[in-house]
Amino acid sequence: MENRKIMLDENEIPKKWYNVNADLPTPLDPPLNPVTKEPATPDDLKVIFPMSLIGQEVSTEKYIKIPDEVMDIYRIWRPTPLIRAERLEKALKTPAKIYYKWEGVSPAGSHKPNTAIPQAYYNMKDGIERIATETGAGQWGSAISFGTAFFDMDCTVYMVRASYDQKPYRKSLMQAWGAECIASPSTRTNAGRMILEKYPNTGGSLGAAISEAVEDAATHDNTNYALGSVLNHVCLHQTIIGLETQKQFAKLDTYPDTVIGCVGGGSNFAGMAFPFVRDKLDGSHPDVDIIGAEPMACPTLTKGLYEYDYGDTAGLAPIIKMYTLGHDFMPPSIHAGGLRYHGDSPLVSKLVKEGVIRAVAYHQTEVLRDAVLFARTEGHVIAPESSHALKCAIDEALKCKETGEEKTIVFNNSGHGHFDLAAYEAYFDGSLVDYEYPEELIKQSLKKLPMLNNK
Amino acid sequence: MENRKIMLDENEIPKKWYNVNADLPTPLDPPLNPVTKEPATPDDLKVIFPMSLIGQEVSTEKYIKIPDEVMDIYRIWRPTPLIRAERLEKALKTPAKIYYKWEGVSPAGSHKPNTAIPQAYYNMKDGIERIATETGAGQWGSAISFGTAFFDMDCTVYMVRASYDQKPYRKSLMQAWGAECIASPSTRTNAGRMILEKYPNTGGSLGAAISEAVEDAATHDNTNYALGSVLNHVCLHQTIIGLETQKQFAKLDTYPDTVIGCVGGGSNFAGMAFPFVRDKLDGSHPDVDIIGAEPMACPTLTKGLYEYDYGDTAGLAPIIKMYTLGHDFMPPSIHAGGLRYHGDSPLVSKLVKEGVIRAVAYHQTEVLRDAVLFARTEGHVIAPESSHALKCAIDEALKCKETGEEKTIVFNNSGHGHFDLAAYEAYFDGSLVDYEYPEELIKQSLKKLPMLNNK
Repeated sequence: MENRKIMLDENEIPKKWYNVNADLPTPLDPPLNPVTKEPATPDDLKVIFPMSLIGQEVSTEKYIKIPDEVMDIYRIWRPTPLIRAERLEKALKTPAKIYYKWEGVSPAGSHKPNTAIPQAYYNMKDGIERIATETGAGQWGSAISFGTAFFDMDCTVYMVRASYDQKPYRKSLMQAWGAECIASPSTRTNAGRMILEKYPNTGGSLGAAISEAVEDAATHDNTNYALGSVLNHVCLHQTIIGLETQKQFAKLDTYPDTVIGCVGGGSNFAGMAFPFVRDKLDGSHPDVDIIGAEPMACPTLTKGLYEYDYGDTAGLAPIIKMYTLGHDFMPPSIHAGGLRYHGDSPLVSKLVKEGVIRAVAYHQTEVLRDAVLFARTEGHVIAPESSHALKCAIDEALKCKETGEEKTIVFNNSGHGHFDLAAYEAYFDGSLVDYEYPEELIKQSLKKLPMLNNK
Repeated sequence: MENRKIMLDENEIPKKWYNVNADLPTPLDPPLNPVTKEPATPDDLKVIFPMSLIGQEVSTEKYIKIPDEVMDIYRIWRPTPLIRAERLEKALKTPAKIYYKWEGVSPAGSHKPNTAIPQAYYNMKDGIERIATETGAGQWGSAISFGTAFFDMDCTVYMVRASYDQKPYRKSLMQAWGAECIASPSTRTNAGRMILEKYPNTGGSLGAAISEAVEDAATHDNTNYALGSVLNHVCLHQTIIGLETQKQFAKLDTYPDTVIGCVGGGSNFAGMAFPFVRDKLDGSHPDVDIIGAEPMACPTLTKGLYEYDYGDTAGLAPIIKMYTLGHDFMPPSIHAGGLRYHGDSPLVSKLVKEGVIRAVAYHQTEVLRDAVLFARTEGHVIAPESSHALKCAIDEALKCKETGEEKTIVFNNSGHGHFDLAAYEAYFDGSLVDYEYPEELIKQSLKKLPMLNNK
């Protein structure tokens, strides 16, 4: 029998991350200080980030070495398998070959630890003893709790109150790894106290939780802030996914025609896509089709503007050039909570703008329908976020059925769905609602971009 | 760096299961018909089981070939990694080497699919179109749903009402794989209707759910019953775990001194242990120490009698010779729900009785404390059941610290804990209670064994 899984040995894990910033067709526009609206300096950032990560954020070196201490922890679950979805292919009756990179085997059940581990490590090296961060549905809070556990650091996670109350188990997972998980808004910070005074019964928001975590980090010398997506260094750490995938395809003596990931803040997509972007830009594989799949309910890349905007709702984070729906855009509460970000990674945005990669958007009902097909053919019950990438892979495979093309399609299967069964429940009981954000509301939200009036 | 994980290639998956029934020091006592109390015949069983599985149940062939169709599905997640717990060793400051076999990578998150897949397969081959089964906490119901999905069979899972109401997500997981999950007692069967008439508000019991599933299977020609543990053929299918483990140790040119698994019905323990039992009995490794770890709240092997007893609470299942606490023993509601069985696999029981393997029992608080240590050193948050095996491995490693012995210890890490975070929550909020079943109550329950008066 042909192997179903393409595995690598631990000593074949790539030794360096790939930095797409070295290869961009045109340079990134600089992030701006949210107060002065002038280009941000490393000094602006060093209150909340270690210099090593700030260095990675602006680096144009093509490859950055993975520290041995990080590699040692990656080896708990990496290299992850690349799996041929042969039973799905048969169910679709497609001539295409579909592969998925399976990141669900990590202890947190998703790709997030790929960056949580190095972020904790670099902070520890800089003498930082505690990380403060926010989490919405809990994926990132869990991953960074896992990361800090390995370097004997403390960790404080501000979790959006509504999720905190609905998902007590996420808190327990963070506790198991030694982190403290606090409902936000909290009385721990000025930001939290001010919000609670105004809205004592609020369910909180990601914007408020970011404000609390940033304040906590900025007001404690031993504490830094950490972000789970969007930023350049986060995308950098995730490239281990795509680099491993390329080594795995090399063992098959093949190269994929189509590379797919789901897009929220952009990091899991970047992790899979950027090594293929490198090959597309250097001309070695000019025709590789690279696709980001996002929810129709938060259509940043497909309906947003490529403009400067605040990274957070409150306007405290740097102003960055990206595809955005406006920083006070409030996406409806879909099950793919990890894809509900108003903006997107500047690197991913730039590559969409330059036409190197393209984006598609889906409704959650069609996404869950395909996730159920996947469960019944390939066995794994996957996260609603990852299911957007699956849906795109299935669409591309069905196109091949029309044309007869025997394309090789790969998607990043970024996490298991064992924490997301409420989404499957809603699909089965018929309560899943599809949202298409009214174009008029998007237009209104986009009128409030901070730099529009400076033009 | 030395590899942290010892992997096998897919073509190194053992091609045959190992049947310990071929090597027992003394033969098993035959199961008895629950009505006549005479030795059960294959005919007694064929109303609810396919002949191929009945054949495996009584076989004394040493190896049984794994069908290609089963192997093809095993290859989705098998071979599973054997992982060196080096960071745990360092935390314990032990000279021992600790390895764990990681079964949490399966789509259901545990070892259960190792038998769910072949059970579904053999039933399909016999022309059976539907499986009826029961589930308590949901592990087995999920696994058999996963198994039947792959052979286009229907599946009806009778889930204990109390769990059904508390854990709606388990139902969604079964649905994702295409199974129907019904709260038991239900109006679907005579057994269910009778119980509901008497106790309209009952939360149900595993015994009642078994009765419903067996009745469903016995009264529908196209339907069979399936059991997730205890029976010989279930233990047989699980031996893939220990056989893989042995191949992995062979790559290290070593053989473990101590082999550990947790014991409920006995199947995950048997799966790890029996290949080592073979080597102990044939004299090639006479000194290997093989240990089953069970909960103090349900101390079947450590406090039970080795006697004939009913396999189920209602007394409908065959009477089997095993360690038992009595078929109407009701263990307290501990978090390791998978270890709450009044009896134990006849094969495991026989080997304990013969002194080939030994058993230990733990309280859930000490078990969870070690699970938290494991999460913070090795990363994985594991199931409370598996944590019993971990606790035993840690105890053995700490003994090595006393004696200075550099033993090699391996335990079967049978599943992840992402569905069991309530146990961790209870541990952290201090609400975890330790139960030691009063010896007097065990004695009373043991007075009701069906064959005692026949002696």
